[in-house]
Amino acid sequence: MRYRITLAYDGTDYFGWQMQASHPTIQSILTMALERIEGRRIVTHAAGRTDAGVHAEGQVVSFDLDREWDGIELRRALNGNLPQDIRVIDAATADDDFHARVYAIGKTYSYRINTSEVSNPFLRRYVWDFRHKLDLEKLQVDLNSLCGTHDFIVFTVADSETKTSVRTIREARLENEGELVTIYFSGTGFLRYQVRTMIAALVELNRGRLKAGSVDELISSGDRSLVGAPAPAKGLTLMKVEY
Amino acid sequence: MRYRITLAYDGTDYFGWQMQASHPTIQSILTMALERIEGRRIVTHAAGRTDAGVHAEGQVVSFDLDREWDGIELRRALNGNLPQDIRVIDAATADDDFHARVYAIGKTYSYRINTSEVSNPFLRRYVWDFRHKLDLEKLQVDLNSLCGTHDFIVFTVADSETKTSVRTIREARLENEGELVTIYFSGTGFLRYQVRTMIAALVELNRGRLKAGSVDELISSGDRSLVGAPAPAKGLTLMKVEY
Repeated sequence: MRYRITLAYDGTDYFGWQMQASHPTIQSILTMALERIEGRRIVTHAAGRTDAGVHAEGQVVSFDLDREWDGIELRRALNGNLPQDIRVIDAATADDDFHARVYAIGKTYSYRINTSEVSNPFLRRYVWDFRHKLDLEKLQVDLNSLCGTHDFIVFTVADSETKTSVRTIREARLENEGELVTIYFSGTGFLRYQVRTMIAALVELNRGRLKAGSVDELISSGDRSLVGAPAPAKGLTLMKVEY
Repeated sequence: MRYRITLAYDGTDYFGWQMQASHPTIQSILTMALERIEGRRIVTHAAGRTDAGVHAEGQVVSFDLDREWDGIELRRALNGNLPQDIRVIDAATADDDFHARVYAIGKTYSYRINTSEVSNPFLRRYVWDFRHKLDLEKLQVDLNSLCGTHDFIVFTVADSETKTSVRTIREARLENEGELVTIYFSGTGFLRYQVRTMIAALVELNRGRLKAGSVDELISSGDRSLVGAPAPAKGLTLMKVEY
């Protein structure tokens, strides 16, 4: 029987989603919990392989279990075997051919930036302490320029698994509450480090510190050396996956 | 020169505000930071002595320093010597007779309750996972009954330092966002464990699990045995102090 669960996690203490032999990852911890309730090794597929330190509010994972589980019972059994920083918020049976990554048609990520000089002790694991003011009007204009279908190669790293770096961003918007700025990106899919590299470029562009004068110039240059290192993992959260 | 600072802290890893010889407290960590910048032991006074595990967004502390400090410079110097879970959000000189506790005329506390069966990995240090639904209309009615000037002895513990258990609650209101319920209390001052014990009584009353049938009955009984143990420290935050 195929199952689909929605996971929320604080990624601070994990080496990302993907199983690793020597470090705790979300997938390895979830696999152990599944093994404990099912008595054998279970193969899991996540919608997005979040990197080390990245969080999720709505990661989706699919897997098969021999036993037939009620969704609520499965959720309870898994949460009883998971640490407090990883929670199953929903569990249900799925169609036999459902696959969390293959069937995903859209994802939403958020990235949180604290522009205040003073960090927030309650958000210290979940925001980038940028410590500088941002021009939010300019930021929204630049976010609009990122929307649409583009070759985003400038915002990624060399990655043999990816056939094309053309992606579509459907929406890019910001919210601000006091000195906390949250940027949301929704799109069909994102390249590795794409959101964090776009964030790094956007804030440097905002402060007039990039050689390129605009998002369009960056994208059309295709020149990764114009863009700095990705923004810190801890500001990034996978919010939602659409099917 | 007298100074007044506003502190925000995640109280999870501390044994409350008050200095202790053998355990890290907010006061001991702040005192060490002050000692490092001033070169001698400094006596500090906080508006409210938060208990172990209780948080603050707006704790106020007063102390004297020999050196004359600009507020922003003092804030930076202290934050440079404090751990990330304790932050000075504001620092300024104060009148010579200012005293953070004596001059306080009002305080606001918040208490956060997660009524969902599933805990939230991002709020796990800051909410009480109550895991049961609450009747919010009844809760607001009971909050209204707590407002005003009453003898709150039923909601405290034996405490020789307190002359009277009569206090005034100016406002008691709730906000809810999804399954997260936040209760705010504003008043002239609160007894030790008062907010957490009121919360414990309110939720049990809400579920019809107290012998007393109403807040009025509880208050007028003066009988502490009618009320259970205080709600967990981690849900409580000192939001604001008024002068």
